[in-house]
Amino acid sequence: MKLKIINPNTTQSMTDKIGQCARAVAAPATRISAVSPRMGPASIESHYDEALSVPGVLEEILAGERDGVDAYVIACFGDPGLHAARELARGPVLGIAEAAMHAASLIGSSFSVVTTLARTCNMAWHLAERYGMKRFCRNVHACDLSVLELERPGSDARRIIAERCRLALAQDRSECIVLGCAGMADLCEEITDIIGAPVIDGVTAAVKMTEALVSIRLGTSKRGDWARPLPKPYAGMLAPFSLG
Amino acid sequence: MKLKIINPNTTQSMTDKIGQCARAVAAPATRISAVSPRMGPASIESHYDEALSVPGVLEEILAGERDGVDAYVIACFGDPGLHAARELARGPVLGIAEAAMHAASLIGSSFSVVTTLARTCNMAWHLAERYGMKRFCRNVHACDLSVLELERPGSDARRIIAERCRLALAQDRSECIVLGCAGMADLCEEITDIIGAPVIDGVTAAVKMTEALVSIRLGTSKRGDWARPLPKPYAGMLAPFSLG
Amino acid sequence: MKLKIINPNTTQSMTDKIGQCARAVAAPATRISAVSPRMGPASIESHYDEALSVPGVLEEILAGERDGVDAYVIACFGDPGLHAARELARGPVLGIAEAAMHAASLIGSSFSVVTTLARTCNMAWHLAERYGMKRFCRNVHACDLSVLELERPGSDARRIIAERCRLALAQDRSECIVLGCAGMADLCEEITDIIGAPVIDGVTAAVKMTEALVSIRLGTSKRGDWARPLPKPYAGMLAPFSLG
Amino acid sequence: MKLKIINPNTTQSMTDKIGQCARAVAAPATRISAVSPRMGPASIESHYDEALSVPGVLEEILAGERDGVDAYVIACFGDPGLHAARELARGPVLGIAEAAMHAASLIGSSFSVVTTLARTCNMAWHLAERYGMKRFCRNVHACDLSVLELERPGSDARRIIAERCRLALAQDRSECIVLGCAGMADLCEEITDIIGAPVIDGVTAAVKMTEALVSIRLGTSKRGDWARPLPKPYAGMLAPFSLG
Amino acid sequence: MKLKIINPNTTQSMTDKIGQCARAVAAPATRISAVSPRMGPASIESHYDEALSVPGVLEEILAGERDGVDAYVIACFGDPGLHAARELARGPVLGIAEAAMHAASLIGSSFSVVTTLARTCNMAWHLAERYGMKRFCRNVHACDLSVLELERPGSDARRIIAERCRLALAQDRSECIVLGCAGMADLCEEITDIIGAPVIDGVTAAVKMTEALVSIRLGTSKRGDWARPLPKPYAGMLAPFSLG
Amino acid sequence: MKLKIINPNTTQSMTDKIGQCARAVAAPATRISAVSPRMGPASIESHYDEALSVPGVLEEILAGERDGVDAYVIACFGDPGLHAARELARGPVLGIAEAAMHAASLIGSSFSVVTTLARTCNMAWHLAERYGMKRFCRNVHACDLSVLELERPGSDARRIIAERCRLALAQDRSECIVLGCAGMADLCEEITDIIGAPVIDGVTAAVKMTEALVSIRLGTSKRGDWARPLPKPYAGMLAPFSLG
Repeated sequence: MKLKIINPNTTQSMTDKIGQCARAVAAPATRISAVSPRMGPASIESHYDEALSVPGVLEEILAGERDGVDAYVIACFGDPGLHAARELARGPVLGIAEAAMHAASLIGSSFSVVTTLARTCNMAWHLAERYGMKRFCRNVHACDLSVLELERPGSDARRIIAERCRLALAQDRSECIVLGCAGMADLCEEITDIIGAPVIDGVTAAVKMTEALVSIRLGTSKRGDWARPLPKPYAGMLAPFSLG
Repeated sequence: MKLKIINPNTTQSMTDKIGQCARAVAAPATRISAVSPRMGPASIESHYDEALSVPGVLEEILAGERDGVDAYVIACFGDPGLHAARELARGPVLGIAEAAMHAASLIGSSFSVVTTLARTCNMAWHLAERYGMKRFCRNVHACDLSVLELERPGSDARRIIAERCRLALAQDRSECIVLGCAGMADLCEEITDIIGAPVIDGVTAAVKMTEALVSIRLGTSKRGDWARPLPKPYAGMLAPFSLG
Repeated sequence: MKLKIINPNTTQSMTDKIGQCARAVAAPATRISAVSPRMGPASIESHYDEALSVPGVLEEILAGERDGVDAYVIACFGDPGLHAARELARGPVLGIAEAAMHAASLIGSSFSVVTTLARTCNMAWHLAERYGMKRFCRNVHACDLSVLELERPGSDARRIIAERCRLALAQDRSECIVLGCAGMADLCEEITDIIGAPVIDGVTAAVKMTEALVSIRLGTSKRGDWARPLPKPYAGMLAPFSLG
Repeated sequence: MKLKIINPNTTQSMTDKIGQCARAVAAPATRISAVSPRMGPASIESHYDEALSVPGVLEEILAGERDGVDAYVIACFGDPGLHAARELARGPVLGIAEAAMHAASLIGSSFSVVTTLARTCNMAWHLAERYGMKRFCRNVHACDLSVLELERPGSDARRIIAERCRLALAQDRSECIVLGCAGMADLCEEITDIIGAPVIDGVTAAVKMTEALVSIRLGTSKRGDWARPLPKPYAGMLAPFSLG
Repeated sequence: MKLKIINPNTTQSMTDKIGQCARAVAAPATRISAVSPRMGPASIESHYDEALSVPGVLEEILAGERDGVDAYVIACFGDPGLHAARELARGPVLGIAEAAMHAASLIGSSFSVVTTLARTCNMAWHLAERYGMKRFCRNVHACDLSVLELERPGSDARRIIAERCRLALAQDRSECIVLGCAGMADLCEEITDIIGAPVIDGVTAAVKMTEALVSIRLGTSKRGDWARPLPKPYAGMLAPFSLG
Repeated sequence: MKLKIINPNTTQSMTDKIGQCARAVAAPATRISAVSPRMGPASIESHYDEALSVPGVLEEILAGERDGVDAYVIACFGDPGLHAARELARGPVLGIAEAAMHAASLIGSSFSVVTTLARTCNMAWHLAERYGMKRFCRNVHACDLSVLELERPGSDARRIIAERCRLALAQDRSECIVLGCAGMADLCEEITDIIGAPVIDGVTAAVKMTEALVSIRLGTSKRGDWARPLPKPYAGMLAPFSLG
């Protein structure tokens, strides 16, 4: 199967890291492509960034459908454009927050999220509600690290995040940790070892869950909410998005 | 005060109608401008349309902030881009679904929403939840009318919508009607007369509520969730959206 | 329009203050009358006080309907008698807790309530639930001040409340403050300046919201829950309340 | 123990019926008194009636406390004045809606409420929520009978209610019936026989539950929400309610 | 009436204590039998223990039905086997967590649970949700005491539990305490005196509530969820459980 | 990896069918064993059956742990013994209701469950709530077929179920179907074709999801709720279950 992972921001080093983590866990028959959109923000740390990452994500989904992609992963913890992407895709589309929270609820009766900036905590809560996972989410913790700090060589991010995970587990009396940023994907194993409790990275969780869905022939339902959008004219610089 | 109403779709006749309805209820000191974005879909009937209407909405908010606009109304029942817009604006920003549902909950202990296409019903439910209004929303009814059918001279839309409102009220045992599309703004009075129960149009409700907030000096809180986005580079055709 | 504000307690100095705050924000065409009932408690700090404030509130609504009042505000943070009042009134009736919480949810993604005595916190939570605002309410904080302490010249209340607001904002990571007592109406501006975040007073919020509803011709729905009460005999000293 | 049952309306025939039903199930050592207040509505069919029944209920509670009453039942399905009554009483105070819903949830995994007028259905839902019983309540059905019709000799009410119970059970796939009016107390046994499923009358349920609480020495907690009201002046015709 | 109390664990000293507490509050006409199952764990401190206590509980219910038992109490705070037991019984079956939480919600507007081991806190939360009592439950506190420590002569358990109750009340600002283990039944009175607030023991609460239900002729509804199980073959060592 | 599927009932033909469906979708490296317990009911159609299937399930988990099994699937739509099983297992344990509902929520914004007997519908609702999936579950439909009717050669079950799925989709306006019985696993593909919408069978969904979890090294968290049970004596015929 062809699995396309879209990092909704335009930072190539993060896209590369995401691709590596994905390939490390993918089934032999899964061909992974990991891409950044041609347009949009270098990192996603606000509703504004998130909203403006969506056109680039959708452009990649449209291209993917032309290329016969079987499933998609949207690799940003805000799951930007998820519902719109599902309208376009025949196969499954998963967000990494969605995949991570689902996985967490299957191996622990509660989880804590550890994310980057405090201002994104509310978005995580909103997603937890939307996915039905609010009852399992004990709290959302910020590390006060920017997304791109995770990409900076020599950064102290690794140590700060591990420490925050340890504290979250203790304070929340929770049973596992959900990493709240695609840029943390490469830290999952190391932090698991440090804190001695399961740590879930959404990138790998989403890769395996989309493989699972495809292998039992489940794609996005085309009834109701996620049916293909109706064709209509689009104006201005977004004219190319018209589905014709 | 300067109040800017953004119709997130690019259909000028609808923008004109929205502007007229708004001006008819605005306070004497309120200067209304009603605009369509320079880019995006002719109508919004899917998550895809909605997502791609947001860049145009945000461009108008950015322009509004430069022009000293005091408050904004986003005039599409999906309230596209609401949270991102709030990050940019100093004054209040209201969506018409939000304003209509809040108003409805103040004058009836339950309401029914009557909207255009069935595929948008789920979005209305999601907004009702997000705004805390789910407990008041008895049901969301579709008329199986496209948004642009409301703009077609000679259309039967008026009669169909009035009839659906009447049925909704009876079936749901609800106490008032929320019109689920900005394009229905001009029907509010007529349908009120036909069904003999309060009918709420979000455009006029949002105009008056933003006036109310401004007059008691309330703007969007800049703490936490809706603080101004951090500056960062934007790539490709969205580069102009970089806040610098 | 004629707007009648009912302070459900019998303390005239508080009624005067409420009237002043209301007039300071009302539209030029709005004629404000602010009254205390002829009967009931000097302040409302328990379910008992609240229940016994209601006959006086309803007497004022009945008088208001005879006088052609267009809308009512019930100016006590417990919103006593709100639903009964709505049964009597043709126009809208708003409680100040209701108005303040709705307004807060439009300008911040969460709020904290700061009120007088700890024993009233539960009532605030119950109202938040009833209005659909529980999801936005981070916490309810008491100042351990009696209601009438707010009226005492030379009281330290002002300083204590401001400090409690500051703490609430920090502890709850909330985005704005809702003042939990009509007697705090005159502190709104000052506390806004001190804490540097939006502070919502329900009196002014309710005045502007009722004006908004009336200006778009929305009154209380007379279908279902808030239809006019059926006539029937009333006994004893409440006989005058019989609607005949 | 002394158990005082307060029928919040002033219709003596209903009070007598309630007293009889209560005595038929009370323990030998329980001395039942059933009273109507000296003031208030002849029946309770609106928020207005309900609000104005409360002073009379509270007067009876105050008298009961002076007389050494051990527990109280408020015998109207809206449970008027329950929280204020609890502030005054040392012993337990139960509403009949509260008692009936609790009992129903212990013997069936869901229940249907059958009540008098449609306009009171919403109140029943609100109480179900307040008591945590909403998850068990499948629906609330009205018989379109006024409360006093239940008292009219030769009325067809008995037949109509039994039929409505039968339908409710079938439509809702529920497991038992809660009778939604104190005036239906004497029908409980007969309807149980007709429909072949448990029928719960709140009057008898509340009598037995208050007996149960008293026998294990549980009274209303005087911490927090239901602590005794603070003394303060009361004005006008309600001056006698001042707790001094 | 015949009331059978089943202590789901096999520790006879605890069964004896439970029986004593039950008899101390039972009505004169109630004949109490208190039993332990013939099989299962010595104490219940995990989902595993709980699941394996159920066959023994059900064997006792089956025996009870043959003996004409009128009602049952399942005396472990996890309420193991409650729904299965209800399918077998004609009369009411109550769990002690269920009875205690219901009683607590009638005398306080919130409660705190104090239980034995931290690992059982989640089960208490789940039961609170299932019974509709989550909204009243402020928190669940563990004492880090094993169940059997409560049975050890000379244990310090009594002091530790009382202290935990005192702290819970203060931290949670709750209004009463629910004891979270049948083995604490004999401490109820003493702790009530120490902390000066109502303390609810589920054993005595359940005894009185089942008496209440039986006296108004309410048994488990045999419609729907708790109808008698269909007969079918059972294999292996559980073959005797086949209902034939 | 070694994946053990436990059919909690003792009907071998169903176990064989479940094994076949599982093997048809498993990864090449997955070794599937499908077993029935040595004890318990021939089918599970009540809380009683469910409770008594659990000892046999747990015996199989204990054996599995000795055999180095990496993950488990509990293949009955009531997910019996899930939490107890998780306490015993190092690897993940999934119920088929859990897996199916999670999968459904990833490919449709709502689902309908189609199950066997009406009396089991409530259990499905309860699981949906427990897993956070209630918001996606539009309704639970019964076919009035016993579980073993699905095993009877020549049965009309296939046709009846397909028709019920078709109706459910239309009535509920839902987007996919969850099959509510392990015995329906072999019908999934056929019904998908008939109704033209995604149909989810929990057996195959659970197989792929457990594979997914294991491949990213996620097992059941041993902190808190699902830590290994404490050792203690077990009495009577359950003595062998003592963990020693």
